[in-house]
Amino acid sequence: MSNRICRLFKIKYPIIQGGMIWCSGWKLATAVSNAGGLGLIGAGSMYPDVFREHVQKAKKATNKPFGVNIPLLYPNTQELMNIVIEEGVKIVFTSAGNPKTWTTLLKEKGITVVHVISNSKFALKSEEAGVDAVVIEGFEAGGHNGREETTTLVAVPAVRKVTTLPIIAAGGIATGKAMLSAMILGADGVQMGTRFIASQESSAHDKFKAEVINAKEGDTQLSLKQLVPVRLIRNDFYNRVNEAEIKGDSKEQMIDLLGKARAKKGMFEGDIIEGELEAGQVSAIIEKVDSVEHIIADVVLEYKVARAQVSHVKFDIG
Amino acid sequence: MSNRICRLFKIKYPIIQGGMIWCSGWKLATAVSNAGGLGLIGAGSMYPDVFREHVQKAKKATNKPFGVNIPLLYPNTQELMNIVIEEGVKIVFTSAGNPKTWTTLLKEKGITVVHVISNSKFALKSEEAGVDAVVIEGFEAGGHNGREETTTLVAVPAVRKVTTLPIIAAGGIATGKAMLSAMILGADGVQMGTRFIASQESSAHDKFKAEVINAKEGDTQLSLKQLVPVRLIRNDFYNRVNEAEIKGDSKEQMIDLLGKARAKKGMFEGDIIEGELEAGQVSAIIEKVDSVEHIIADVVLEYKVARAQVSHVKFDIG
Repeated sequence: MSNRICRLFKIKYPIIQGGMIWCSGWKLATAVSNAGGLGLIGAGSMYPDVFREHVQKAKKATNKPFGVNIPLLYPNTQELMNIVIEEGVKIVFTSAGNPKTWTTLLKEKGITVVHVISNSKFALKSEEAGVDAVVIEGFEAGGHNGREETTTLVAVPAVRKVTTLPIIAAGGIATGKAMLSAMILGADGVQMGTRFIASQESSAHDKFKAEVINAKEGDTQLSLKQLVPVRLIRNDFYNRVNEAEIKGDSKEQMIDLLGKARAKKGMFEGDIIEGELEAGQVSAIIEKVDSVEHIIADVVLEYKVARAQVSHVKFDIG
Repeated sequence: MSNRICRLFKIKYPIIQGGMIWCSGWKLATAVSNAGGLGLIGAGSMYPDVFREHVQKAKKATNKPFGVNIPLLYPNTQELMNIVIEEGVKIVFTSAGNPKTWTTLLKEKGITVVHVISNSKFALKSEEAGVDAVVIEGFEAGGHNGREETTTLVAVPAVRKVTTLPIIAAGGIATGKAMLSAMILGADGVQMGTRFIASQESSAHDKFKAEVINAKEGDTQLSLKQLVPVRLIRNDFYNRVNEAEIKGDSKEQMIDLLGKARAKKGMFEGDIIEGELEAGQVSAIIEKVDSVEHIIADVVLEYKVARAQVSHVKFDIG
């Protein structure tokens, strides 16, 4: 295993399935791990007892490494971390918070820790906190997103400049060619979210999967910037948020408009008109729902073909 | 010459210097062409007589191919096109408008025509209009920008899917690694703007060049979205625009706030507080002002090294 991400997680391919709310339970995560990548259970949409159930099911469904993603912005983080330790989860991705809060404790328990960041300043903070790797996520990524809006093409080399840590690139990556590009820019592996929404094994509602498949360029937009910026597929709900933003509505008005449980409504229950549909720009080039096994095989094959083609005369210059 | 962009323009390297207002006159354009790329005189900030002077000086300063970039949003386009034809300019890049308006006429005069686009829909329109190539410019690019906010990493493969035309990738590209990445994603060549702002030969004010060099991630933002979206370096002027946007100011109020000649004031006259400073996100990884000759040599060398390294064991997976 020459690849650092493969060595770190003891996996075959340096392909991580991003932990996503309402899409990545034990079924998706273990399908990815069984196919040679690293699957992550997305704890962000789970109550602690549901999270424990998913971890226990995952342990039964695979003997390969898998992990969990825990966004640090909810009040139940301590409970989730207790479950991680009690259930012997070996890999934790943290996001949306300070990498110093949990890394030391988790590392003491022998857990591999990765922090999700959106710029090089947080790469340095993560390194100081003692993480094993970082995910650098660009503006094009679905769901929660950084405020600086730096894209993957710029953010990956910016992070590579400041740290020797293994880097996982995320945002805009759904193909083997994009994976190879990210690795040329300085990444050691990639994280894909949206491509795995459009998998048979994801728990996304079929109507939401269809929205991802049918989305064209421009059909996702970074939204709710006054609260936590989040990339959404444009629908009636998005349009109302957008109008409110242009009108100059206050933060409080936006919180009212958002209401509760819109992501569940959209992504899990399939209300594609009133729900919040978190997906990345790369929806524009994803064309069908596939099995996880097929997705991983497709990305790996395209990566290998693209890698071989780089030596062809087509790439000669000067 | 195996590369289609090199064949099309009869140049050594498929590296285009983006036509920029206040930065790319005859001096920068011919330096790029003399170094083996394709230099473009940016007509957007030039009165017709000034534009003619730049074209005439460029013809004297190089015997290599060079071109001009004409944004189609100003009332003097007809005059500029007359000068193009009278002076025998051989390559025209059009932007910010409909590719059908000028392509047929220019092609009849034997001129090579390239149109700048921000999505695949306009790639098809450009192909129908009969252009010779397209520039696909991502969200991270400086200056005027598309409304859909699609990044280069997503836009290049999206355009590659719909057209067989030669594709020039722009936005976020300042290095040989980014160039190789763009070509793996489907581009035949690249256009760099911001990297050439930070050249000795650009007519940008030294204070503006220093702003580009010193910018970090997040220091440029897409702004003035209610008018024509434009990526700017954050300064006092930008902050006022941003506050006005959050407050929900009207389009008319934004036009008042913008006033006149702010880009000239900032980029050419060096008022970095009150001026409009158009630059790309990639400012974050550009570290010094170099000669054009050095920039081209540096990008080409890094491209070649990166290309050779792709076959190394570091890129083995599975």
